[in-house]
Amino acid sequence: IKTPVKKINYSNRGMTLEEDINATNQYYLECGKAVIHKKPTPVQIVQVDYPKRSAAVIKEAYFKQASTTDYNGVYRGKYIDFEAKETKSLQSFPLSNFHEHQIKHMHLVAEQKGICFVLIRFSSTDEIFLLQAEQLFIFWDRMKNGGRKSITKKELLACSHTIILGFQPRIDYIKVIDRLYHFD
Amino acid sequence: IKTPVKKINYSNRGMTLEEDINATNQYYLECGKAVIHKKPTPVQIVQVDYPKRSAAVIKEAYFKQASTTDYNGVYRGKYIDFEAKETKSLQSFPLSNFHEHQIKHMHLVAEQKGICFVLIRFSSTDEIFLLQAEQLFIFWDRMKNGGRKSITKKELLACSHTIILGFQPRIDYIKVIDRLYHFD
Ligand SMILES: [Mg+2]
Ligand SMILES: [Mg+2]
Repeated sequence: IKTPVKKINYSNRGMTLEEDINATNQYYLECGKAVIHKKPTPVQIVQVDYPKRSAAVIKEAYFKQASTTDYNGVYRGKYIDFEAKETKSLQSFPLSNFHEHQIKHMHLVAEQKGICFVLIRFSSTDEIFLLQAEQLFIFWDRMKNGGRKSITKKELLACSHTIILGFQPRIDYIKVIDRLYHFD
Repeated sequence: IKTPVKKINYSNRGMTLEEDINATNQYYLECGKAVIHKKPTPVQIVQVDYPKRSAAVIKEAYFKQASTTDYNGVYRGKYIDFEAKETKSLQSFPLSNFHEHQIKHMHLVAEQKGICFVLIRFSSTDEIFLLQAEQLFIFWDRMKNGGRKSITKKELLACSHTIILGFQPRIDYIKVIDRLYHFD
């Protein structure tokens, strides 16, 4: 009789980019590597009930558009700031994934000499790229000047840094930061 | 006939510490001095309605305890992280204003060489103090070891940095940071 061997699934199917980054940040936090958190979703609270003997309940609220990026924190005294974007596209990353104010925020951070980047995942192939803000601005400006509205995978392979999905940490973006900013 | 002269009120009555800090951060942002934001209030969203042709409405949500501090951002590449606390007490600042996890977060930031502090306002007198995290830890540990549960104003005058309320920016905490970390 053949016993079915339960295969351990090392692939990432089902995990969202956000879950993987949160697990990575948790790992960094626990081993004292960096302190980086996801910012809470901004909501506009309209009505709150205060029932007796129990917690306040928000009864009416709306999602507000975030004015900054998803994640920020500190690594070796330096300010780290990044946005995470996932796409189902196969061959290019559509710039429509960004809002104008996110780009503006990244510009301000870059001017303040913060370390600023985007983590882009192609969900169909599980490829992950770290694209520095300064590079993103070039593609963004190209679009603004009438050029293409996306970054091709070929361009990403040339201008960004591939991150191989790991076990622990899953998305070791600090390793890329170490190399780029000579922290190692 | 005596005409009542409308006095311009330079005092801060009615403005909360949070409003003053937000205005200060807005000023820093606009003049390119620093990029520092208040983190959104974390809420646990339980139920959302998606009405046709209008925005999603959060119908049930709860306030979550913040696991970090109120504000963070970047100044000259450095990570800035702080908490704002207001007290009605006259002679001392009660340490019960802090949660254990906020102190823990500040420890992690300090270990990561981030610039970390608390802005304390005595609302009755409009006195504002910038207390560095490293100093706060000393008072916190004293309490943990059975000592007093507050920081006296005398201690604050000795161990922290007084900020005089200004017009623009209202609470110029970067000026203190410049002095403490030799940025000027
Ligand atoms: Mg995102
Ligand atoms: Mg506070």
